[in-house]
Amino acid sequence: MLHFTFTFSHTIPLPRFPSSLVHPELQLSSDSAEKNLYKTKFFTQILDHFNYNPQSYQTFQQRYLINDTYWGGFKNKAPIFVYTGNEGDIEWFTQNTGFMFEKAPHFKALLVFIEHRFYGKSIPFGGNKEIAYANSSTLGYLSSTQALADYATLIIDLKKNLSASDSPVVVFGGSYGGMLAAWFRLKYPHVAIGALASSAPILHFMGVTSPYVFNNIITQDFRGVSENCYKVLKGSWKLIEDTFNKKGGPELLQKSFRICNNESDPGSLEGWLQTAWVYAAMTDYPTPSNFLNPMPAYPVREMCKAIDSSRGNNNNTLEKLYYAANIYYNYTGNVKCFDLNEDSDPHGLQEWQWQACTEMIMPLGGNNEESIFPESKWSYDDRSSYCQYAYNLTPRPHWITTEFGGHDIKKVLRRFASNIIFFNGLRDPWSGGGVLKNISKTIVAIVAKEGAHHVDLRFSTKEDPKWLKRIRKQEVKIIARWIKQYHEDL
Amino acid sequence: MLHFTFTFSHTIPLPRFPSSLVHPELQLSSDSAEKNLYKTKFFTQILDHFNYNPQSYQTFQQRYLINDTYWGGFKNKAPIFVYTGNEGDIEWFTQNTGFMFEKAPHFKALLVFIEHRFYGKSIPFGGNKEIAYANSSTLGYLSSTQALADYATLIIDLKKNLSASDSPVVVFGGSYGGMLAAWFRLKYPHVAIGALASSAPILHFMGVTSPYVFNNIITQDFRGVSENCYKVLKGSWKLIEDTFNKKGGPELLQKSFRICNNESDPGSLEGWLQTAWVYAAMTDYPTPSNFLNPMPAYPVREMCKAIDSSRGNNNNTLEKLYYAANIYYNYTGNVKCFDLNEDSDPHGLQEWQWQACTEMIMPLGGNNEESIFPESKWSYDDRSSYCQYAYNLTPRPHWITTEFGGHDIKKVLRRFASNIIFFNGLRDPWSGGGVLKNISKTIVAIVAKEGAHHVDLRFSTKEDPKWLKRIRKQEVKIIARWIKQYHEDL
Repeated sequence: MLHFTFTFSHTIPLPRFPSSLVHPELQLSSDSAEKNLYKTKFFTQILDHFNYNPQSYQTFQQRYLINDTYWGGFKNKAPIFVYTGNEGDIEWFTQNTGFMFEKAPHFKALLVFIEHRFYGKSIPFGGNKEIAYANSSTLGYLSSTQALADYATLIIDLKKNLSASDSPVVVFGGSYGGMLAAWFRLKYPHVAIGALASSAPILHFMGVTSPYVFNNIITQDFRGVSENCYKVLKGSWKLIEDTFNKKGGPELLQKSFRICNNESDPGSLEGWLQTAWVYAAMTDYPTPSNFLNPMPAYPVREMCKAIDSSRGNNNNTLEKLYYAANIYYNYTGNVKCFDLNEDSDPHGLQEWQWQACTEMIMPLGGNNEESIFPESKWSYDDRSSYCQYAYNLTPRPHWITTEFGGHDIKKVLRRFASNIIFFNGLRDPWSGGGVLKNISKTIVAIVAKEGAHHVDLRFSTKEDPKWLKRIRKQEVKIIARWIKQYHEDL
Repeated sequence: MLHFTFTFSHTIPLPRFPSSLVHPELQLSSDSAEKNLYKTKFFTQILDHFNYNPQSYQTFQQRYLINDTYWGGFKNKAPIFVYTGNEGDIEWFTQNTGFMFEKAPHFKALLVFIEHRFYGKSIPFGGNKEIAYANSSTLGYLSSTQALADYATLIIDLKKNLSASDSPVVVFGGSYGGMLAAWFRLKYPHVAIGALASSAPILHFMGVTSPYVFNNIITQDFRGVSENCYKVLKGSWKLIEDTFNKKGGPELLQKSFRICNNESDPGSLEGWLQTAWVYAAMTDYPTPSNFLNPMPAYPVREMCKAIDSSRGNNNNTLEKLYYAANIYYNYTGNVKCFDLNEDSDPHGLQEWQWQACTEMIMPLGGNNEESIFPESKWSYDDRSSYCQYAYNLTPRPHWITTEFGGHDIKKVLRRFASNIIFFNGLRDPWSGGGVLKNISKTIVAIVAKEGAHHVDLRFSTKEDPKWLKRIRKQEVKIIARWIKQYHEDL
């Protein structure tokens, strides 16, 4: 899951994760998850793989989760499926990657989920977040290249310990984890025979993908439901500002949106609404889900239904917007009032901001005329100024394309590399930076018109639509082919 | 050119480069080289690509040499040939890579030779070697991965400045430079369309290549000339020690080997001789050359001729050994006496020792029964102890295979990557760690039974044997195919 920090102004807000919400979808407490899905282990990892300073030799405990219930064992050279963890608590991603659990019996696969350094419980500097997150001297070790080297080191060591040097490794990841999975296959082909990179916007970098694409996809998602819905959302920002400036307007806003305290300033409110629209589009899943918040199937459709309906006062647009936002913020109906500036972080995602200030310069949040959000430009200078202010550093905006490429990807990879699946759901705004066309016979794009953010990796449900079942089957078939070929090559 | 530090005991000595010798082969002083072959430029390079500490943002001036005489220009998308510099002064490697100069007109190629960080004039910390080489806090930034990232960064910037984004880049390198060229193609396929990796022992790492292979190839080189030569060399170590322990023995050794001062201890003398045998084998070129020292064509043969001949006292083995060593140390005949502990370093290679103490753990110098050198084992523990003593650090012996692979290379790369030529000459002891068999249709091995260390990259001469001409033609043909295919793909 990628979030989209650094879109200041009131175009796109920082993400907010109401902390009161757990994950009923899986019906698993942390305890039972631990018991049923995986065992927790730790690996002693080196702090800096690419440098030989004395401080680079420091180590930290990297968490990984493992499930060997279905593994066919090293004697059978049975495969190892590894999830390359993204920017948050690995338990959260694991619990949202049912695909691996459900397919493990078929492949007799060992399952391993590795946590990304500086997230969850994989914190350098003795696990002390106060030190690790203090400033760039310690946060400096948080980077994608270090994370990939962590994964290579851990996997090689694990295979050695399991006498499983002949077991093929396939890596899986969604969102930033999907980017890491794809890059891992590209950089460490001697460690992984293939990668399923789900909703991995590896092209969402400066000079490769337009900063307008992300919000235009969101716009299209809502506009695709109804033109009225689009128009109401598009007009809402002016409506909110006009209301706020009227006598009694702030109170009306507070009442309409059930705001707990006197914080109905337009900026906060607009940010709060935009978060709802963005995340509804990203996780516009075909079945009820609880990735970020509990939501019904196709939440974008439900939001537009609220906007298009004549519930309550037919003309009260504020009320309609409230009911639409409620689908994201309060689908369970438990919340009585909202704190607009609530910024709890139950999944431990906050250090993404550091990554977005150093190398992950992903231009998004620009709004052209058609956007449901107010017109605005994405500005690298704004990002850079913020990073200077927050961390006293300058981003390296071209590093990711220098290290991993991105320009002319088809030309570069059509005769290089193999065994990567790029899945994208076109409802997902991140798909704008994804690989949407086959690159070669073995580097393939699977595109789901109706799909959202790494929907393929989620636990299956009885209500899953046919296209989703078909896509998962297709992925299984391709991965089976990689493994078969690997065994034949032995 | 790779040298072979860290083989203490009297098996293999540290390399010695008599400082009095220049490079008459090219008939170029540094001034005229500068004038005729290339222009010198500098690029502002970042100190640490993989870390975002404040100190990582420090920059240094990286030297590169450029020749645009033959370039067809960006409008014609004419190619750029880049030499990925190794562990020494880039001018030295450039002057020994005539292949690129000679083929540039045919390809209308721009030539660029990039110096490796921490060598030559590409010294971080303000160019101050005293600081840069002081200890692991500063030397820590000397690593192969940083060097590769330097090359990617510099090439991308250079192409941008030349408006040459559509010009294909082919990388070239010999020895460690060849390892870097191969790794560069593997890690940065978006920057280079192919690599000619000459005498690149990318497999010469722990657990992949035996530590006996290197010296066994040297042994074979001498034994292949004559069994007597082999026997004399093999017996020489005992002879020297016996002589030393006799009354008047030290004086006899001093006189026989024209040693300037009273340093005829067996260890120094044996090291001095071993250096001669090793480098003669490595640079056993078919024409007179001056890579390390001026030498005749096929110096191994000449050395054995000296040993097998009856020049002087037919029974004076010490005298014969002297004449053999003289072929390496004094082919010009200018040196009147030798300082066995002379350790000048005209090519600036000394920081290889740091690399050999951190990541370049290349096991070589073990001697089994058949070796011309006294029996001995290669020991990682010895290396580690030395590195602890010299730099207060522990090597990372498995890092290179973690980062770049090496195990089962054929299995890993047969369906991954493309466009690499691995050249090896089988007289070269480094060929034992090279890729000697084709991996796929586009990752090919070119092997010259009569060839020595990156002989293909040297300036051609009228006396070049047919096999060498044929090999160079083959390389040109393959590179031309890469470029043609690149243009067709555009």
